[in-house]
Amino acid sequence: MIWLNNMKDKIIYNYIGKVLIGFALLFIFPIIICFIYHENIIPFVIPQILSLIIGLLLNLIDTKDDSIYAKQGFKIVAIAWILISIIGAFPIYLNKDANFIDALFETVSGFTTTGATIFDNVENLNKSILFWRSFSHFIGGMGVLAFVITIIPLSSKGKSMHILRAEMPGPTVGKLVPGIKKTLLYLYMIYLGLTITEIVLLLFGGMNFFDSILISFGTAGTGGFSVLNSSLATYSTFCKCVVALFMFLFGVNFNIYFLLFIGGIKNIFKSEELRVYILIFIVSVAFIFMNTVSLFTNSFQALIDSIFHVSSIMTSTGYSVGDINIYPTSCRVLMMMLMLISACAGSTCGGFKISRLIIIFKSIKRDIVKVVHPNSVKAITFEGKKVPEDIVKNTSTFMFLYVILIIIMIFVVGFDGFSYEKTINAVFTTFGNVGLCFDVTNFSGFSSLSKVTFCIGMLLGRLEIFPMLILFIDRNKE
Amino acid sequence: MIWLNNMKDKIIYNYIGKVLIGFALLFIFPIIICFIYHENIIPFVIPQILSLIIGLLLNLIDTKDDSIYAKQGFKIVAIAWILISIIGAFPIYLNKDANFIDALFETVSGFTTTGATIFDNVENLNKSILFWRSFSHFIGGMGVLAFVITIIPLSSKGKSMHILRAEMPGPTVGKLVPGIKKTLLYLYMIYLGLTITEIVLLLFGGMNFFDSILISFGTAGTGGFSVLNSSLATYSTFCKCVVALFMFLFGVNFNIYFLLFIGGIKNIFKSEELRVYILIFIVSVAFIFMNTVSLFTNSFQALIDSIFHVSSIMTSTGYSVGDINIYPTSCRVLMMMLMLISACAGSTCGGFKISRLIIIFKSIKRDIVKVVHPNSVKAITFEGKKVPEDIVKNTSTFMFLYVILIIIMIFVVGFDGFSYEKTINAVFTTFGNVGLCFDVTNFSGFSSLSKVTFCIGMLLGRLEIFPMLILFIDRNKE
Repeated sequence: MIWLNNMKDKIIYNYIGKVLIGFALLFIFPIIICFIYHENIIPFVIPQILSLIIGLLLNLIDTKDDSIYAKQGFKIVAIAWILISIIGAFPIYLNKDANFIDALFETVSGFTTTGATIFDNVENLNKSILFWRSFSHFIGGMGVLAFVITIIPLSSKGKSMHILRAEMPGPTVGKLVPGIKKTLLYLYMIYLGLTITEIVLLLFGGMNFFDSILISFGTAGTGGFSVLNSSLATYSTFCKCVVALFMFLFGVNFNIYFLLFIGGIKNIFKSEELRVYILIFIVSVAFIFMNTVSLFTNSFQALIDSIFHVSSIMTSTGYSVGDINIYPTSCRVLMMMLMLISACAGSTCGGFKISRLIIIFKSIKRDIVKVVHPNSVKAITFEGKKVPEDIVKNTSTFMFLYVILIIIMIFVVGFDGFSYEKTINAVFTTFGNVGLCFDVTNFSGFSSLSKVTFCIGMLLGRLEIFPMLILFIDRNKE
Repeated sequence: MIWLNNMKDKIIYNYIGKVLIGFALLFIFPIIICFIYHENIIPFVIPQILSLIIGLLLNLIDTKDDSIYAKQGFKIVAIAWILISIIGAFPIYLNKDANFIDALFETVSGFTTTGATIFDNVENLNKSILFWRSFSHFIGGMGVLAFVITIIPLSSKGKSMHILRAEMPGPTVGKLVPGIKKTLLYLYMIYLGLTITEIVLLLFGGMNFFDSILISFGTAGTGGFSVLNSSLATYSTFCKCVVALFMFLFGVNFNIYFLLFIGGIKNIFKSEELRVYILIFIVSVAFIFMNTVSLFTNSFQALIDSIFHVSSIMTSTGYSVGDINIYPTSCRVLMMMLMLISACAGSTCGGFKISRLIIIFKSIKRDIVKVVHPNSVKAITFEGKKVPEDIVKNTSTFMFLYVILIIIMIFVVGFDGFSYEKTINAVFTTFGNVGLCFDVTNFSGFSSLSKVTFCIGMLLGRLEIFPMLILFIDRNKE
């Protein structure tokens, strides 16, 4: 780790140490599951101790200057996610469910809330491993570091903002209330509240307790790991509707729920992003319903399937209730577009985010006007506020990188020699943290090179490119 | 034509009139071919007279204020290209070779130097029609309006610059020498000189006179319409090498040849774009050679094929010398990337252009540095000069529009229900003005909706988006 050999970056070691100590605590939950189902606790205890020891050692590093700037924030987040992915892969590896690369793929897929799996038969897995997979969605959705900042005393007043900016999705991250910790607590209350509501509704719909918790974890983090091989196809229609609704709800910017709490319902629909989200959702459902209704014997079934799959794809969850491979090309193309666009910023979704799309469209419109009228000067507004030119530029850069990285990934995965459609879909679904993929039920058939590429892609997608990129680009300059 | 109902835009009618008069003159060449091969001249005389009459009528429109601004320039180019495509389709339609939409597709494909055909058997076509197809490549390569400006006295001193900017490819269009007409004359001398050299070499290689002219026209305009159904597969290896070389040469910025003429060889390799062009070319050839050599009995043959196809795809020509469908996925993905990137600005190639790619990469690099060091301010330099921020922004906007339009086209063509690969390839190859396509030998199998979409895409690609877009967006504002 050459990039750590710098005196200024001591704060990075130190902070990551704290994160790993916090991460070690998370293993308590699967260990409890082990006790309940009489399963082996060793696969969880070993990484827990490992995380704790590394964490304590790193935490010993003395740091006098404890200020965290943007660059340090990006690096902390990137390195922490890589370490957590590696340590988090141990349970699956030690349980002899998969080799290390596959275990790593599964864990990265979990924490990045992708939900793409390498298992052809998840029903064979231990309950504790199933729990660990879905729990990683739940933790990864809001952010591993956000979780740690919430539960551990980190002494740095206001300095965690750069960490949150780097970890949380969306072009702008604001505080709901003064104080990061308080903001995070509110967010977690919303997150937990929605998750518990979903668990209760699923229980009401006849799902067993274990499944309803795991499916709700997967919905909350917009992950997509399932408990059954058929994903959600065999559950009751009521349960499917509940999951479809909650996938949609977890695709909404959490600030909206906060506003709902304090300001009443009328302020909500002033949100441009929410309006566009609902519009894209309705149009997509209508389009897919009309183009697939002839494939079903029952048009109600077709409607439920359309709503479920649009909700699943748009929010980058990746649950399914039927065979999406029967969809015609136009629907597949639309679904690929939805994968790329994704839902609202400030939600647990992956992908490009609707707010970025709106900013990009407004910027294009302005630039076209400028070609015709070279002297026109106009600021872009979004959600009623002027968007600083820095953010507009950043959004452009993000889009360039998004396109370029997708092309590079397609190129590397192309070596496996699968069809175009399979190759492109697999890249989109991992990079967009979706997990559902045409022509692919599990990712075990890809080469190790492709699996590592997917891991990098999932991390790049989840952390929105910059942290990972800065980690690898910036090390030469120091 | 609602967008013409404006007093200010009289100059647009008037100028288009002049263009159509110039265009009428072009029909003389195929008519000569008709006389040589004793073919029917009527299919050429009718559109010629039509073009002349419309041109003279439009030219009658009185215009006092004859200044052409950027907006007018864009509109003139867009409308002229649409009219020329429609009038140019008459020979094929009147000769009963195809219905009007197919004839229009073929003509747009010709003038935009795409080279995608709707004919399954081009060897059945009249010589005059074959000539007209390839001649449209030759004219379209440098630009229909550039041709007219060069041969017709247009009275407007310096005002044609906005026309050339709108019609000529690349982010920046500069003059080689003071005076547009003189610049154009030099460019045409380079263009003609290279074309004639190619004809002579092909004759030397044993190709017949008619074929060598047509193949050279197709090379010069980087078009790709061929005379034989097998494209260039049956010609001698020498001829294949000549065409491969000249495709590469026509992908170079013509300014380089001018510099070569006046400044000697040492200044040439200072060009960043040329260096990157050569680098991408060599790396791509090496990659495709290594990944396809096992498919050939003879490794020399594999090398020739690799060089030829990289040259053909990169310069958006679209000739082929063998079955590209046997290439493995990684090579196909690479070739699709080359289709999008294309060659140098200021050449006859379609696509995104390497100079834009360089500017985008430098802009991304700058923006990443800015994320880490928010206060850094640095101008982007290209070819030793500072790039104005307007051009950097324009390049970004161009890329956004490029991506968005490709996605829209894929979506519309998706309705035809072909495979992903076929759909995506067909869109890339038309939008990038390439013409060569995996899994597609001719475009007759697509629906009329798709064919019209391809026509719009080819025009958008050839005119680099803005003229067409401004034509359709700006009309409401007047």
